[in-house]
Amino acid sequence: MKSKNETKIVSESGSQEIIITREFEAPRELVFKAYTEPELVKQWLGPKGYEMHIDKYDAKSGGEYRYIHTAEGEEYAFRGVFHEVSAPETIIQTFEFEGAKGHVSLETATFEALPDNRTRVTGSSVFQSIADRDMMLRSGMEIGVREGYERLDEILEKGLVK
Amino acid sequence: MKSKNETKIVSESGSQEIIITREFEAPRELVFKAYTEPELVKQWLGPKGYEMHIDKYDAKSGGEYRYIHTAEGEEYAFRGVFHEVSAPETIIQTFEFEGAKGHVSLETATFEALPDNRTRVTGSSVFQSIADRDMMLRSGMEIGVREGYERLDEILEKGLVK
Repeated sequence: MKSKNETKIVSESGSQEIIITREFEAPRELVFKAYTEPELVKQWLGPKGYEMHIDKYDAKSGGEYRYIHTAEGEEYAFRGVFHEVSAPETIIQTFEFEGAKGHVSLETATFEALPDNRTRVTGSSVFQSIADRDMMLRSGMEIGVREGYERLDEILEKGLVK
Repeated sequence: MKSKNETKIVSESGSQEIIITREFEAPRELVFKAYTEPELVKQWLGPKGYEMHIDKYDAKSGGEYRYIHTAEGEEYAFRGVFHEVSAPETIIQTFEFEGAKGHVSLETATFEALPDNRTRVTGSSVFQSIADRDMMLRSGMEIGVREGYERLDEILEKGLVK
């Protein structure tokens, strides 16, 4: 399914951050739920063709998460802590790919209610260095983000988020 | 007490980070302890003349902390989560002043063993924006950091960290 909503990814030269903006055809409460309930998260987070196994996903302030993406026999594990989860507006968390241990980013997702029951999500990632930020860009994260959001469109459209 | 060890604070124009470097006349294991054991932390963290009340300080991967600095009847509360605590080398945590809620930084402290039982601590703070970084610099944090490290010199010299 090709979405009418474009995923905008901005990463200025010489900066330590990536800013991603995306709109969804669903109310803010539902989009927020899709970000915080593990049974929903595993249905959309990450690139197409990946299985997501959730080790833990305690989406509350002070909670931890860890999940593993699997494709073609390869495993990619990610972990972090939730600094703040304030429904339905804000999620602030750390993020680390266990394959690049010690390289951690701080992720802030802001959920904004738009007219007509639509939602805008703005995600900012700040990295410990410009080199870390550039490593993330080279990792193919853009495809994963775009495809993940298309999968999220689908589960929202199918009414799987209630 | 005037320390012979200088606190170097580097914050380049247009960057989202602050890098602080400081050496101590004590072995790495002890300096690391002084950063992670709440009864020690409260004896040095923050500017001179402040009382530190620790609400929680669970310095382990996935743990939370919250403390309140008090001076002249004013209270300043800080909170965050520990993404990683790996003795005696690395502490990665989030940091938020509750008086500026929603403005969070990612702090990485690296402890390096030097010859003669000395230790170098490198602390990096990355902020969600350049404006946030500049707000932190204007807050007088430099004085707090320098004075805190002088207090840490003292408790190390007095043999209070074992």
